[in-house]
Amino acid sequence: MQSRFQHIALIGKYHAPPSAEVRQQSIVAFSQIASYVEARGGTAYLEQETANFTGMDHYPTLSLDEVGKRCDLAIVLGGDGTMLGVGRELAKYNTPLVGINQGRLGFVTDIPLQTFLAPLSAILAGEYEEEIRSMIHALVIRDGECVFQALAFNDVVVNRGGTSGMVELRVEVDGQLVANQRADGLIIATPTGSTAYALSVGGPIVHPALACWVMAPIAPHTLSNRPIVVPDTQEISIEVIGGRDIAANFDMQSLASILRGDKILVRSAPHKTRFLHPRGWNYYTTLRKKLGWNEGGITP
Amino acid sequence: MQSRFQHIALIGKYHAPPSAEVRQQSIVAFSQIASYVEARGGTAYLEQETANFTGMDHYPTLSLDEVGKRCDLAIVLGGDGTMLGVGRELAKYNTPLVGINQGRLGFVTDIPLQTFLAPLSAILAGEYEEEIRSMIHALVIRDGECVFQALAFNDVVVNRGGTSGMVELRVEVDGQLVANQRADGLIIATPTGSTAYALSVGGPIVHPALACWVMAPIAPHTLSNRPIVVPDTQEISIEVIGGRDIAANFDMQSLASILRGDKILVRSAPHKTRFLHPRGWNYYTTLRKKLGWNEGGITP
Amino acid sequence: MQSRFQHIALIGKYHAPPSAEVRQQSIVAFSQIASYVEARGGTAYLEQETANFTGMDHYPTLSLDEVGKRCDLAIVLGGDGTMLGVGRELAKYNTPLVGINQGRLGFVTDIPLQTFLAPLSAILAGEYEEEIRSMIHALVIRDGECVFQALAFNDVVVNRGGTSGMVELRVEVDGQLVANQRADGLIIATPTGSTAYALSVGGPIVHPALACWVMAPIAPHTLSNRPIVVPDTQEISIEVIGGRDIAANFDMQSLASILRGDKILVRSAPHKTRFLHPRGWNYYTTLRKKLGWNEGGITP
Amino acid sequence: MQSRFQHIALIGKYHAPPSAEVRQQSIVAFSQIASYVEARGGTAYLEQETANFTGMDHYPTLSLDEVGKRCDLAIVLGGDGTMLGVGRELAKYNTPLVGINQGRLGFVTDIPLQTFLAPLSAILAGEYEEEIRSMIHALVIRDGECVFQALAFNDVVVNRGGTSGMVELRVEVDGQLVANQRADGLIIATPTGSTAYALSVGGPIVHPALACWVMAPIAPHTLSNRPIVVPDTQEISIEVIGGRDIAANFDMQSLASILRGDKILVRSAPHKTRFLHPRGWNYYTTLRKKLGWNEGGITP
Repeated sequence: MQSRFQHIALIGKYHAPPSAEVRQQSIVAFSQIASYVEARGGTAYLEQETANFTGMDHYPTLSLDEVGKRCDLAIVLGGDGTMLGVGRELAKYNTPLVGINQGRLGFVTDIPLQTFLAPLSAILAGEYEEEIRSMIHALVIRDGECVFQALAFNDVVVNRGGTSGMVELRVEVDGQLVANQRADGLIIATPTGSTAYALSVGGPIVHPALACWVMAPIAPHTLSNRPIVVPDTQEISIEVIGGRDIAANFDMQSLASILRGDKILVRSAPHKTRFLHPRGWNYYTTLRKKLGWNEGGITP
Repeated sequence: MQSRFQHIALIGKYHAPPSAEVRQQSIVAFSQIASYVEARGGTAYLEQETANFTGMDHYPTLSLDEVGKRCDLAIVLGGDGTMLGVGRELAKYNTPLVGINQGRLGFVTDIPLQTFLAPLSAILAGEYEEEIRSMIHALVIRDGECVFQALAFNDVVVNRGGTSGMVELRVEVDGQLVANQRADGLIIATPTGSTAYALSVGGPIVHPALACWVMAPIAPHTLSNRPIVVPDTQEISIEVIGGRDIAANFDMQSLASILRGDKILVRSAPHKTRFLHPRGWNYYTTLRKKLGWNEGGITP
Repeated sequence: MQSRFQHIALIGKYHAPPSAEVRQQSIVAFSQIASYVEARGGTAYLEQETANFTGMDHYPTLSLDEVGKRCDLAIVLGGDGTMLGVGRELAKYNTPLVGINQGRLGFVTDIPLQTFLAPLSAILAGEYEEEIRSMIHALVIRDGECVFQALAFNDVVVNRGGTSGMVELRVEVDGQLVANQRADGLIIATPTGSTAYALSVGGPIVHPALACWVMAPIAPHTLSNRPIVVPDTQEISIEVIGGRDIAANFDMQSLASILRGDKILVRSAPHKTRFLHPRGWNYYTTLRKKLGWNEGGITP
Repeated sequence: MQSRFQHIALIGKYHAPPSAEVRQQSIVAFSQIASYVEARGGTAYLEQETANFTGMDHYPTLSLDEVGKRCDLAIVLGGDGTMLGVGRELAKYNTPLVGINQGRLGFVTDIPLQTFLAPLSAILAGEYEEEIRSMIHALVIRDGECVFQALAFNDVVVNRGGTSGMVELRVEVDGQLVANQRADGLIIATPTGSTAYALSVGGPIVHPALACWVMAPIAPHTLSNRPIVVPDTQEISIEVIGGRDIAANFDMQSLASILRGDKILVRSAPHKTRFLHPRGWNYYTTLRKKLGWNEGGITP
């Protein structure tokens, strides 16, 4: 049987220069996958930077944009960070992604490097669970102009500088005042990001099928300023009305310096990303493993 | 102009015998509303128990079921508890509700008794914000049979007895294991209930437009057992696998004794309830007032 | 060199009937310890109930009270629960305790069963860290009379019944009103208990050398009702002013039914307990292991 | 009867230039107090900067150091921030302080400006509650040398920069490893500081009579990294082993840039500060007012 996926991109930790060990692992894994793909009549491409750092020159190479245009599947080797980075770039092409984790289990890179071939070949044969994840489209507005914009899979964070006091933020949703908050900062997280930074400030875990955002203050001055979950059909506006040295971070990847009076707008991004998981995968199993549930507790 | 609402039910704190003061307030308010309705060509009905406790015998009376069948609006005088109680009963008739609070501002009873006539007459004239709230349909399954069922606006709570140790619960969502939890109990809250009991155990505030539930453990043994927000299209199953003297509460109104092996199923109720609010009402304003935001903080 | 400990009691899980496996483990361990003690010229005694459940009849037996009077060391095999139970009984005799854990590492039973002989012989030779832990002396006062009293190593808990609403408690410290609290209940924990139930409701971890208590509300109605740490030289009074089916638990071992108007008084117990640990033991190492610190985190 | 306090310093918001209103209030209040003091045979002094900003030139002036050397009481008009600032300066002289709050009630400035004369004259007559508060002496160690040191009444905070990721801190207490923490930062708070920044990240409230510190992580990566209360007889060492743009703040008043490898040492300051309160003052009343207890709750 011919696979529904014929043009397949192989992508590694393409941003940071990897260690020798990771490089070697990547070469072995990509070679195996490429052979497997070609044996089934498909074509394997190496993403350009991945080809560079691995030195693998036997395969056709593509830029990420070309991957989006020409491939019907991208296989990512790395951690959740790598996967989300690739996902941000490919979202507009609707390319599905499969994640193989090189370290420990990730939320979206759920196929272990040690035993990837069986689950991967099942996915290539069309046996998979598809999961849709949404992103934030964030804009920084200054004097009525958009001076910065970014996509975020996990979160948008507006926070104080390391040596300054609290920020003061006027938060509105669809034009309605939610609160003036004084805090170290404010996290707007997607369901994907709900298990990242937002969780560490007391935010809830949110199932990725829910079309919503978590607004979680960091060290809020007012004790009743609790995390709020809002529909992602609503636009969140965060106006900075007090504080110094304020920054906005987007997935902790890109950032903008923020001035008093700036507004950070948070909207649902128009494109969504498709992650493919092995049959039988489900969100709660990953959650249970990542959070160490059912592995003992605290009482003497 | 004739109001779109012609047959209007007046309902008070119909369950508990009210104080003399509340009774007197109710008589005055109901009389004013009835006069106003009749002056505009409509008919005012008193809910039967409300007629009994107020002693008002000038108006036609209806049982709650008859209210559902014959009226196109119910005006409730009381607190959120009264409002939600009436809402549970009228949900299957799709009767819209307006709430006048007799004490302090409620989340859904947002018209103050002191100044109710202006906002109420605007609503009767068709000037209102409509808000839809969903409910839980909960079932207790024992040996494969449903032995109890109830509707809940706020929450379903499974908890330990006052003198016993932790319960142990096997929680599944759509047949997928979430976790075996050891805790004092587990709260499944609607967005409406997210600002009630669930908030006091660290759950998030959830906007009522989101079709979801909060699963919030009470005093969980495992520190990483954090509140989870899940789509209300999924069925939650809570199987009691350990503990003694366990009870299930539904809106803290009805309850069931639970045996080991019982399952509590939580599903979305088929009917939803329509609350009418004065023009300009919005959820966040109520939230801000109820939680005391922007009224000072804690730092010296 | 002769040990400073000549009369040594061996105590197992003397309350609950143990499994065959635990019984067998206990027989092996107690035999080894007894031989070791006798070889060094000391005398090993079996606590009476321990002798019964193990069937070991080669050794002199003592009741717990006799242990307190005649032994200069008690070696406890079990978990933290067993250890604290023995500690409550022996506190007034000032007998030092050594704990061997039969399951996983405990906070106070820190010698593993698998390799107990080396650390134990060092302790018998006088090489140990001594740690002092304090207890609560709790009294239930009804109509001016003390109707119940108990010692507690971990905590005193006043809570609602499984099917009733919140309790309302008037909390005073040394006669000064702290707050009227509405909640599921209130935990007064020692530093020892701070890593037990109180931790699961958001209480802090407290170093055992601090002479203090944690007052941690369970699911408090008011969000700013946060855990408070108070000196244990002060007397805490908890008056029950509202609620039904209320109970007071002491280490979850003994309990009292509480009526409206009852006061639960919490005082520092006059006796303290001495735990002996292997040289090099420190509190933070145990904490780190019990709470799984430095074993990865949550962010993708 | 002659007061035990003969030489009395009057101190205002001596750091920041005050508003015209505050200036006017200060002049009125200081004039009243000075007259009262002089009428009773004592001498009133104006702290030098206070004399400058008020323009009051009828009274002898003293620098803060001279206040410490020559006065037996300092009356501070301002908020808790002003009071703690003066307290830091005067601690080594053991001068007792009385606080009059110019805005809302403070934790230590508990006499209201509107009605200060009666409580103040009682205090001057020897009728007061004395309360002792301790401070932190913090040192920054780089390459074995102390490169910065400061006193702190509230807290020492080590945190990340506004645009950088988590810090990684190796925390030791008396040379024993507590944990390697990855977080936004770490707060070491005195009991006084427990109701300030530390409270907003989930730390407990700590009674000021307890000789201890709260170690509260800010947004910790590991969910079980909970606040810990430790005796202030122990030295805390915070070694910065990862992160960028790291800063250490002391009462958010002074700060130091921190390099990887730096250690921040936290010790108990040798001097303590005496606050005098009106008879009948107690800590819990202030707490109750500041945190809004008994003023309603959250449940509908």
